[in-house]
Amino acid sequence: MDSCVIPLRHGGLSLVQTTDFFYPLVEDPYMMGRIACANVLSDLYAMGITECDNMLMLLSVSQKMSEKERELVMPLMIRGFRDAAEEGGTSVTGGQTVVNPWIIIGGVASVVCQPNEFIMPDSAVPGDVLVLTKPLGTQVAVNAHQWLDQPERWNKIKLVVSKEEVEQAYQEAMFSMATLNRTAAGLMHRFQAHAATDVTGFGLLGHARNLATTQRAEVAFVIHNLPIITKMAAISKACGNLFNLLGGTSSETSGGLLVSLPREQAARFCAEVKGQGSGGGAWIIGIVEKGERGARIIDKPRIIEVPPRGTAAANQENSSSTSPAPGDTMS
Amino acid sequence: MDSCVIPLRHGGLSLVQTTDFFYPLVEDPYMMGRIACANVLSDLYAMGITECDNMLMLLSVSQKMSEKERELVMPLMIRGFRDAAEEGGTSVTGGQTVVNPWIIIGGVASVVCQPNEFIMPDSAVPGDVLVLTKPLGTQVAVNAHQWLDQPERWNKIKLVVSKEEVEQAYQEAMFSMATLNRTAAGLMHRFQAHAATDVTGFGLLGHARNLATTQRAEVAFVIHNLPIITKMAAISKACGNLFNLLGGTSSETSGGLLVSLPREQAARFCAEVKGQGSGGGAWIIGIVEKGERGARIIDKPRIIEVPPRGTAAANQENSSSTSPAPGDTMS
Repeated sequence: MDSCVIPLRHGGLSLVQTTDFFYPLVEDPYMMGRIACANVLSDLYAMGITECDNMLMLLSVSQKMSEKERELVMPLMIRGFRDAAEEGGTSVTGGQTVVNPWIIIGGVASVVCQPNEFIMPDSAVPGDVLVLTKPLGTQVAVNAHQWLDQPERWNKIKLVVSKEEVEQAYQEAMFSMATLNRTAAGLMHRFQAHAATDVTGFGLLGHARNLATTQRAEVAFVIHNLPIITKMAAISKACGNLFNLLGGTSSETSGGLLVSLPREQAARFCAEVKGQGSGGGAWIIGIVEKGERGARIIDKPRIIEVPPRGTAAANQENSSSTSPAPGDTMS
Repeated sequence: MDSCVIPLRHGGLSLVQTTDFFYPLVEDPYMMGRIACANVLSDLYAMGITECDNMLMLLSVSQKMSEKERELVMPLMIRGFRDAAEEGGTSVTGGQTVVNPWIIIGGVASVVCQPNEFIMPDSAVPGDVLVLTKPLGTQVAVNAHQWLDQPERWNKIKLVVSKEEVEQAYQEAMFSMATLNRTAAGLMHRFQAHAATDVTGFGLLGHARNLATTQRAEVAFVIHNLPIITKMAAISKACGNLFNLLGGTSSETSGGLLVSLPREQAARFCAEVKGQGSGGGAWIIGIVEKGERGARIIDKPRIIEVPPRGTAAANQENSSSTSPAPGDTMS
């Protein structure tokens, strides 16, 4: 499970808690703070929890930074983290800061819940549909962006992508990672989600497999569609399936929720996630079959190119968001 | 405050939570794990809380360790942490592990409490007595132990201390840091403690000052006695008051509780802490006067030499533990 659930000594309540910390992966300190916070909260959201009672911040300042660099960078990072916490309806009340060779940022999110406030991620059944609430490809986007300054690397991908497209994809990845999965968490209750997890270090397929193993019913998750930030599939291919993005195991940071929910609810769930305008998307990506608690991607999955927000392509997609979600054709 | 206290949405309950992480400072990985856990729990104990509902472990493995070193060291460290958590009546249910240049170990302790389960550290009054539940000098002991292999440094202290004494002091520091402050936390309720904090990075005087600033009454903490691991005061003096141990600001790791409690309760509190045989000690170290919310150590405080456990001197002290605590003469 993404969070631990501890039964308490008091009146049927449970303590749900999660922690995550990692190293900066975008250049903008403020956005990095937001991403770190979104990433911590995401573990609660994956359990359908929309509230957070307390957030602690875990921080390390790099010993290699000058005093001036520290004064510039760290307050911005802390502010981004705090702002995202506030957007999540919580606040940062404590934490710990150390000095380290590397910058570290992360946190601890805790909430005390009644049983109806969270959804145990174990009730997927054959016939369910799988939905993903953020596009894949953040790792590829972040790396491709670094390659803009590394001619040897850039030469490998310059035939399939322009510098502007890499810049846009990087921005999209950054905003996507900084987006809270809170809207989707709330909608999981309304649309009777059966199980969910958030997609992070093990990639879509890795987390789908983990989720499959915890199911009470004998099910298999079969993934047909891969929503990917525009051009990131092309970059991955040009580099010999870089990070195995197309195989579903490319790491994501602060990725979307992978939700299993009844087939008749899926399209409306997707429409609502998009309609609430909180920056998230939602795509039907697969189905739940009877099986031995595993997950797989079909041969030649459909790649859904997800355009960066603010571009003409994105506006066009949004204006047609009342139509069924892109993945519906497979059902 | 050592922990944050968050009022919850449910029935008068509060979430009390704390986090701490740092770098290894003893060579024994198992003991290091125990120390890290004792250090995290100590923030709860300082509020008179004896239970912990959940513990998360924060860990980083050093990238400089070989595969073999990792396999040897990390499981021992984790086991030490888990064992100490178990001794504290809780268990480790989750956490996060990363790779870093340095090893990091720490945790997050959380408990959901009714109001009578914790003691807000703000009610010291003039006439109270100050008690400390672990000896000072862990930083000096750990450093002196490293100097055994550094002739230049060792030469500075070899006239005041033998190698065997340094070895014993290091062992004592290690066991002291690994000792839970849980017994003292429980006794804080029985003996009506007014306020407490745990002594860590800012040293005895630093934490006494912090505690003084949070008091509702206008009080000053005056420290008369310094219980210090045997010979550590001599080492500090030989090095020109190394780490300012005698000035009260030498860092401690997983130090004792500094407790303000009614004068008539103090001696019995000390006797009970020792009598319960959980590895802790207790010394009356000062008094609370009317004043402007500060703390100070008197000129020429009495140094109480605390012998390492298991030595003849320690056994002698223990056998006379029904007599008043060492510090009582000042009252």
